[in-house]
Amino acid sequence: MSKPEREINEKEKNRWRQLSFNLSEDESQILSIIRNQAPIDRANIIRQLKFSRAKTNGIINDLVDNNFIKIYGHGASSGGKRPQLLEINAEIGYVIGVDIGVTSMDVAIANFKGEILDVHGIESDIKDGPIAILQSMMDIIEDLKARNNMDSNQFVSIAIGVPGPVDVNTGEVKSPPLMPGWNDFPITEFIKSKLPNIKIIIDNDFNMMARGEYYSGIGKGHDLFVFVKIGTGIGAGIIINGDVFRGHEGSAGQIGHISVDWNGPRCICGVNQGCVSGMAAGPAITAKALKAVKENESEFLVKRYKENNNALSAKDVGDALADGDQTAIEIINESGTLIGLALSSLVNLLNPGLIVLGGGITKSGNLLLSSIRQTVLTRALPFSTRHLRIEYSSLGDKAGVTGAVILAIKNVECSYKDKMTV
Amino acid sequence: MSKPEREINEKEKNRWRQLSFNLSEDESQILSIIRNQAPIDRANIIRQLKFSRAKTNGIINDLVDNNFIKIYGHGASSGGKRPQLLEINAEIGYVIGVDIGVTSMDVAIANFKGEILDVHGIESDIKDGPIAILQSMMDIIEDLKARNNMDSNQFVSIAIGVPGPVDVNTGEVKSPPLMPGWNDFPITEFIKSKLPNIKIIIDNDFNMMARGEYYSGIGKGHDLFVFVKIGTGIGAGIIINGDVFRGHEGSAGQIGHISVDWNGPRCICGVNQGCVSGMAAGPAITAKALKAVKENESEFLVKRYKENNNALSAKDVGDALADGDQTAIEIINESGTLIGLALSSLVNLLNPGLIVLGGGITKSGNLLLSSIRQTVLTRALPFSTRHLRIEYSSLGDKAGVTGAVILAIKNVECSYKDKMTV
Repeated sequence: MSKPEREINEKEKNRWRQLSFNLSEDESQILSIIRNQAPIDRANIIRQLKFSRAKTNGIINDLVDNNFIKIYGHGASSGGKRPQLLEINAEIGYVIGVDIGVTSMDVAIANFKGEILDVHGIESDIKDGPIAILQSMMDIIEDLKARNNMDSNQFVSIAIGVPGPVDVNTGEVKSPPLMPGWNDFPITEFIKSKLPNIKIIIDNDFNMMARGEYYSGIGKGHDLFVFVKIGTGIGAGIIINGDVFRGHEGSAGQIGHISVDWNGPRCICGVNQGCVSGMAAGPAITAKALKAVKENESEFLVKRYKENNNALSAKDVGDALADGDQTAIEIINESGTLIGLALSSLVNLLNPGLIVLGGGITKSGNLLLSSIRQTVLTRALPFSTRHLRIEYSSLGDKAGVTGAVILAIKNVECSYKDKMTV
Repeated sequence: MSKPEREINEKEKNRWRQLSFNLSEDESQILSIIRNQAPIDRANIIRQLKFSRAKTNGIINDLVDNNFIKIYGHGASSGGKRPQLLEINAEIGYVIGVDIGVTSMDVAIANFKGEILDVHGIESDIKDGPIAILQSMMDIIEDLKARNNMDSNQFVSIAIGVPGPVDVNTGEVKSPPLMPGWNDFPITEFIKSKLPNIKIIIDNDFNMMARGEYYSGIGKGHDLFVFVKIGTGIGAGIIINGDVFRGHEGSAGQIGHISVDWNGPRCICGVNQGCVSGMAAGPAITAKALKAVKENESEFLVKRYKENNNALSAKDVGDALADGDQTAIEIINESGTLIGLALSSLVNLLNPGLIVLGGGITKSGNLLLSSIRQTVLTRALPFSTRHLRIEYSSLGDKAGVTGAVILAIKNVECSYKDKMTV
């Protein structure tokens, strides 16, 4: 006898407007169990916790009173009264998840269960700088709110993924090679000026995507796995014990600056030579395609170049590949091999059970995946690869916003923590 | 008013002979607090735990009754009775820590506080195979027991570090490139046949050393750091959140097989080319020195070669370096540069705050350290190196046995766990 989803009324709206959304560690622990295992009864929650029945029941009652959780229905009786089943109150508040890429931006709104209610994506250019990009983001949020009949006060949290290194504690982007003009820009203050009551958290795009795959995608159930984004740059979101691994100062996962040619060209990172990001990601693929056009090596690419008014993108190389173009096969195969070399170092160091590949370049098809697998299997220690799976993302373009929505919720639930670890 | 160390009597000896040393997770948690914070009173322990005062006191009383902990003395009164201060009972049992290297072996005995009581080291050759090496180890243990007036029943746990990949769950060495004849050898059964009542755990040497530095050396207080052993091979013990990070199947930390020359010579790992271990560790240093002798490039090394009856070791290169020999400077500098390249990939991936270098080759002096630092700082991302410390081990030759002693104790304290994570 499950209860129908409750309509949210004005009284409740006012109620959560007043909520601080500052939860204790104990409350957070209980919410997390309910989030992951709902519908669940009290006895089951008590069994999983170290604290007493009285304490657990007290916290649950408070969470029900404050509308964080609600009665889902009643379970089967095991002799006495039928037990209450609990679930997260999806409408306690809404969150915003944003994935800002180098050439695109996606914005999603979701309920407090993490269910995405609406999403909107646009093409954008990160080089337009923080004010233009963040204003576009605000415009999309306004549109999403309007078309879903919501108002700003209902949104309790926003998480934003960006294509560069982030100091998660300040929310500032730090010396980002692909984001000119963004260094140290006060993203958090900009958003606060538009949405004063919202919790804000900024993170690297590949960490967001790793989180999305861990909670909703192919990474589900894998407490140790690595998400590798292959786009304009290359970066890795490393999940260890279910958390994003950040390193000592938050800059872990920079696989794009592993060298695959120690005497190769200097990278835009300014220090290393032959970084895999510069040798194998989007711009390298485009540069090789342009060279092939100049040398008249590919009929397909020459035609596309002219159609595009003398321009090419990595997507064009993917189209050429789909058409069986030999030059495109060579270019993508080379990228896969180089990325495989960098991944072989990662595999030797971390011995992950699963590597998930995402980002725009993975749309070029299965050749890239195959080249990467082939190289890792012939370069990394056999003991570390015998059960290793390397797969494409199951969430595709949605990995970033999915992870951002989850982080926005976790940033409310884990507000007791000094540092965000999810 | 601290109590003098108690003499252990026959009754107690018989008592701990009967102990199963199988602790629950709750008991283990309390023991761990006492181990790390002794002398400590009950109120302080209760404050740190989630479970009730009654439960905590019950467990502490049991642990006192079973001699795991004892009364250290009494603290200052805060109004009422002066509180009892507790500490680990160092004599509840003894442990053995072993560090088997490619060319040496060290064996330590320690009390249950982890204080090393005696240690003995010999030169040995891992290629003599498991039976000869393990028999030597047993002989040393017998000597140590005899000269310290102890008997086998007093030893509750042994931990052994070996220079190759280990399946920690079975205690078997897996396809070890430097340990011919050891693959899948049942080390645990061999020891059980000699010491039937002892708990046994085997691990990679670099993990042992990392543990030693974390609990007693320069790594103390660093919940994220990397220990790199540079000896006959190169490997990294990675400490994350205070535990050794093992990866999906236990083979994490194989930094020695990161390539520093992607088209270089095939490595003994059988898969990769130009692995840093083959290019920069002990045997590579010796090979370069022998080549210099052949080409008559170094007076010092030629003389040493003749004195050694036409042989050279990495230690000779260290001696030449100390003498200012130009060839030795070049050889060690090259090793440092190559190790620095591999470490730059590690730093980009993991962003550790501290890298500790140990193993025989680090005895060659500060040039190696300087070359490694120089290369990491000019190759890894500046954001990840600005606060990075790279230091030599503070425990030196003792890092391995120190870590082994700690692991032996933890293997008793964490007996409730399916898998060892310390």
